[in-house]
Amino acid sequence: MIKRRLSLFLCLCFVNAAYAEYRATGDLGLVIERAKGSALIINTSHQTTLARINALGDLSHASVVFSRDQRYAFIFGRDGGLSKVDLLQDKIDKRIIQAGNSIGGAISQDGRLIAVSNYTPGGIKIFSTETLELVAEIPALYGENKLSKVVGLVDAPNQHFVFSLFDAGEIWMVDVNTPKSPIIKKFKEIGKQPYDALLTPDGRYYIAGLFGEQGLALLDLWNPDAGVKRILPDYGKHDEKLPVYKMPHLEGWAIAGDLMLVPAVGQHEVLVIDKRQWKLINRIPVAGQPVFVIARPDGRHVWVNFAFPDNQQVQVIDAKDLTVIKSLTPGKAVLHMEFTPRGESVWVSVRDDNQVIVYDTESFKELKRLPAEKPSGIFFSSRAHKMGL
Amino acid sequence: MIKRRLSLFLCLCFVNAAYAEYRATGDLGLVIERAKGSALIINTSHQTTLARINALGDLSHASVVFSRDQRYAFIFGRDGGLSKVDLLQDKIDKRIIQAGNSIGGAISQDGRLIAVSNYTPGGIKIFSTETLELVAEIPALYGENKLSKVVGLVDAPNQHFVFSLFDAGEIWMVDVNTPKSPIIKKFKEIGKQPYDALLTPDGRYYIAGLFGEQGLALLDLWNPDAGVKRILPDYGKHDEKLPVYKMPHLEGWAIAGDLMLVPAVGQHEVLVIDKRQWKLINRIPVAGQPVFVIARPDGRHVWVNFAFPDNQQVQVIDAKDLTVIKSLTPGKAVLHMEFTPRGESVWVSVRDDNQVIVYDTESFKELKRLPAEKPSGIFFSSRAHKMGL
Repeated sequence: MIKRRLSLFLCLCFVNAAYAEYRATGDLGLVIERAKGSALIINTSHQTTLARINALGDLSHASVVFSRDQRYAFIFGRDGGLSKVDLLQDKIDKRIIQAGNSIGGAISQDGRLIAVSNYTPGGIKIFSTETLELVAEIPALYGENKLSKVVGLVDAPNQHFVFSLFDAGEIWMVDVNTPKSPIIKKFKEIGKQPYDALLTPDGRYYIAGLFGEQGLALLDLWNPDAGVKRILPDYGKHDEKLPVYKMPHLEGWAIAGDLMLVPAVGQHEVLVIDKRQWKLINRIPVAGQPVFVIARPDGRHVWVNFAFPDNQQVQVIDAKDLTVIKSLTPGKAVLHMEFTPRGESVWVSVRDDNQVIVYDTESFKELKRLPAEKPSGIFFSSRAHKMGL
Repeated sequence: MIKRRLSLFLCLCFVNAAYAEYRATGDLGLVIERAKGSALIINTSHQTTLARINALGDLSHASVVFSRDQRYAFIFGRDGGLSKVDLLQDKIDKRIIQAGNSIGGAISQDGRLIAVSNYTPGGIKIFSTETLELVAEIPALYGENKLSKVVGLVDAPNQHFVFSLFDAGEIWMVDVNTPKSPIIKKFKEIGKQPYDALLTPDGRYYIAGLFGEQGLALLDLWNPDAGVKRILPDYGKHDEKLPVYKMPHLEGWAIAGDLMLVPAVGQHEVLVIDKRQWKLINRIPVAGQPVFVIARPDGRHVWVNFAFPDNQQVQVIDAKDLTVIKSLTPGKAVLHMEFTPRGESVWVSVRDDNQVIVYDTESFKELKRLPAEKPSGIFFSSRAHKMGL
């Protein structure tokens, strides 16, 4: 009897310890460790690592979205894995392999649905955020029963998802207000091989980059009936002989007032676009081929990282006069940058130095270094409250 | 011995129960119950009330900011009370009376400092968010040793606070990078009796409304050396005989792209301003004297509530064609509206019906009613991640 009571007592102690920490979720984030298939849960107020989550599969091209309460992170792995990580309990809540090869995902405006964009089989699948049960499947059918790879998947206002079909050259807009019977609107012949896309932070414009030809495809979600327009006809790969080390990410495009700062493809330039007329108005010379061009949350500064062989550097552009005001050398293979929600600091992943470096964004001083194994993407929980990520 | 063990066991059970709930903080909020001096902690995912916090003092003009981890809400009461509420433990963590009469506050960009704007004694006080200990005090001195009431206090990028001196007609910008010795920059003769102010969501423009004359005072924080300019010279009270039931709140001003939708003073109109030139370009007739004019997070719709005697109504303006597309009658004395971070729903406080009503922002359907005693302001924890609130 006493023995039984004692074991119950010990058991309770254990349970109690597991519940002992009050943890808020507004200042948390994930750092992807791509080689190891793991992720670090970090805290941006104390600039600390709280835990490592292992066994997340192939994270060589991983992205992350967050539940609307910021408790769960959903990680989309290259291997079709979809992992739901509990940021309060430091563990995988659920994990499924939902396809053979996947490229990214999005969470619906109401937070109830997760959509994943797949290469194999080409299409998107929609899951319940609570259970990860399949709710709907939308094969990316085109031509004679062919399936296209899907890229550039984003959530949009009024419970929509928007994505692009790489092989088909189409943009699809899906209304998931009735999740089991989604309503699909297709835009055809939008351009050759859309390879990535972005939604402007106000949720209005969906812009797809084209791999197979020049220019960008623009869909105004306030006027979908006007169809997809071509903008910036010179944007893209200019010369087949010029090596493009990496097609720049579109989700990194910076909006500062009416200006949009955009990575040039294959050139050592950041392009400045006037968003009112979608015209190129300036070119800013930078240290290499830009990969991410990301505005500080107040839009005053724009941070740029670069493709190989210039990927040890980061440059900062002042949006006021469109000049480079600072060059930093964080280390070997800078892969990603993420600003804290109100922009006082930025976290930079330096893959080949196995470091994440935190900078003050005004003084550019290094504030902290955290060890991480081959870190790539950094994602803060404040993304839960933003559209189009 | 067994008795002692049993009591320890019971004690542990109790502790365990107190810790039993994992609660994330991304979807929480506070509803101020102004008459009772209390606040409800609510959850926007489940549309439920989690707890009531009592003994918060005089909340007849209360506002709230959140810690950067979203665990704590700081409530500024009319009586000079500053209360720190723990959203994880449903209790007051700390409460001080810091002045005789106060009007609002702000939290610094890095989340470490709380500033409170006071009427009596006129000035601001700066506290540690962690301990609520006084860090600095800035009396609003002007003329011959007089103290001005302080209004329109906001946080701004690079660890600044900005506020206006009602009696002095000045705007002060305070750099609190070294909190114990803040650096103050004063702008004088900005106009008569600034009564409230706003910071544009990008943190760039500080705009103060004037009670004592027409027009608005504009400070471009990217160019503080250019000084304060007067914009919209006709804005304000037009006719002393026309009753103005309530000076509209400035923090509610809606930004949608390049347009700013602004409540007219004393008139049944919402004004449309082109933000690029600060020119009035349109007037939209509405159901009463507007109080709050708030954009849905995607900027497509703008919701308006009204002063007495039209305060039973709410109207929705479509930013695409600048017309009223929906009129709702939530009930007696609609005081405030707060959108969920990605805008799928809006919470409306209806004071004299003792209700908070949640609407779907696309269908305008009522989703839920929650009882609340004389509810006024509604504040969601996602504000933690925004500037200028």
